[in-house]
Amino acid sequence: MRGSFARQRFMATLGATLERVTPGEIAIAFTHRGELTQQHGFLHAGVTTSVADSACGYAALSLMEPGAGVLSVEFKVNMLAPAVGERFLATGRVVRSGRTLTVCAGEVTAERDGQTVAILLMQATMMAVRGKPEVAD
Amino acid sequence: MRGSFARQRFMATLGATLERVTPGEIAIAFTHRGELTQQHGFLHAGVTTSVADSACGYAALSLMEPGAGVLSVEFKVNMLAPAVGERFLATGRVVRSGRTLTVCAGEVTAERDGQTVAILLMQATMMAVRGKPEVAD
Amino acid sequence: MRGSFARQRFMATLGATLERVTPGEIAIAFTHRGELTQQHGFLHAGVTTSVADSACGYAALSLMEPGAGVLSVEFKVNMLAPAVGERFLATGRVVRSGRTLTVCAGEVTAERDGQTVAILLMQATMMAVRGKPEVAD
Amino acid sequence: MRGSFARQRFMATLGATLERVTPGEIAIAFTHRGELTQQHGFLHAGVTTSVADSACGYAALSLMEPGAGVLSVEFKVNMLAPAVGERFLATGRVVRSGRTLTVCAGEVTAERDGQTVAILLMQATMMAVRGKPEVAD
Repeated sequence: MRGSFARQRFMATLGATLERVTPGEIAIAFTHRGELTQQHGFLHAGVTTSVADSACGYAALSLMEPGAGVLSVEFKVNMLAPAVGERFLATGRVVRSGRTLTVCAGEVTAERDGQTVAILLMQATMMAVRGKPEVAD
Repeated sequence: MRGSFARQRFMATLGATLERVTPGEIAIAFTHRGELTQQHGFLHAGVTTSVADSACGYAALSLMEPGAGVLSVEFKVNMLAPAVGERFLATGRVVRSGRTLTVCAGEVTAERDGQTVAILLMQATMMAVRGKPEVAD
Repeated sequence: MRGSFARQRFMATLGATLERVTPGEIAIAFTHRGELTQQHGFLHAGVTTSVADSACGYAALSLMEPGAGVLSVEFKVNMLAPAVGERFLATGRVVRSGRTLTVCAGEVTAERDGQTVAILLMQATMMAVRGKPEVAD
Repeated sequence: MRGSFARQRFMATLGATLERVTPGEIAIAFTHRGELTQQHGFLHAGVTTSVADSACGYAALSLMEPGAGVLSVEFKVNMLAPAVGERFLATGRVVRSGRTLTVCAGEVTAERDGQTVAILLMQATMMAVRGKPEVAD
């Protein structure tokens, strides 16, 4: 899994690193960077969503059979608070693991002024792919 | 609106540019870049989602009263096909415009080998903010 | 498909009837009934959502191979306007048809005072099931 | 709140009753009924979704200022397992409470053969309405 994460070049572009890997739950850390902001100077919702998506995907993959790959079928996010902070943590957790489809819950928290604030909530569907990677089918 | 888009530094990081601006509908173009890929070499779902989110946000803003700002309340995406292609176009369109909340439909298409393929479908809720920008409340 | 719809006893409870069946697109009609209302006297959001879900499910089924069954994996709805009116029409349309998963767009409109108003927008994922019906897996 | 629930005639049609009311969390119980089923004999996804929507709505209302009303802006559900069982419990819980918008998490569990199984997961946005009830605006 760490190998797969290392090949997600977009996570490197976001400065995101695997923080915790346990079966069914993954945490990915990232920090504020000016090049990831939207018009108000907060992190763009797409940034926090992207890392939450990867956290959910790897949480799903952690419970799949060896050799399987994972693809995002769909996800939904609610922004709970502005993405303001020094450091962020995206957590993905498997809610239901199936042979083909896995349902995950994701959350992103921000650390600001020594406090931890929930800023994003995700509900996602992931799909196991076998053999050559292709889109959810 | 073009000024606001220019301040979305994350859009510059993704190489995304405003392609078309009409009242209630916005198109944003971007191209394949290695640093935006996931483990299979496709664009990360977070990249296409981020640009679709911005397209929906600016579509909503285009129908709001002058001086208003816009924030993403929530959105949901389905991945329709792998994000493979040379060039991509994200379109955001207002479905229902309210004083506080705006509902938008987003789509991302890929151009590959001379064909246009729909790769992402979004349904989003945007919020008008007045005065100092803050989160959806 | 009409046989399957006739076995959806909940659709009969809602007074919903198949209005139009074409490959990839289904319309289901229903009318205002007092026993389907919420606290403000509008139709409950769950009623309009339920019919939209069935419309999307049958739209998906209409493009599946003979003998397949269909189950809702997930869906997301936005309420666009209060469910006020004399007659309602839920439309489900296939956006992307896959071997296992189908993505659909749904809409519900209300007829009130001779006008047609969009009241609900849905984005749904449906799954083909073969053999004994079971949950999305 | 119990008065408002009693005016939700659709909840009576579904045989749903308020089971637990605490600030920020509501539980609603219901049982299997033949007239609520889909083509495979399970409860229709719209039934479990409708009760989860009401649970989230009343959870949101429980934290709003006196005199406010509540409307569903949007929600998303994943079906986790077939809605098979003798008795069902829908729980709605406030994740983030704002002046205008409230984000809720919903869940439905089924009791079957003495076991409790999670069958539905919801993520919802609710809106406070003041004065005359109208749609989210």
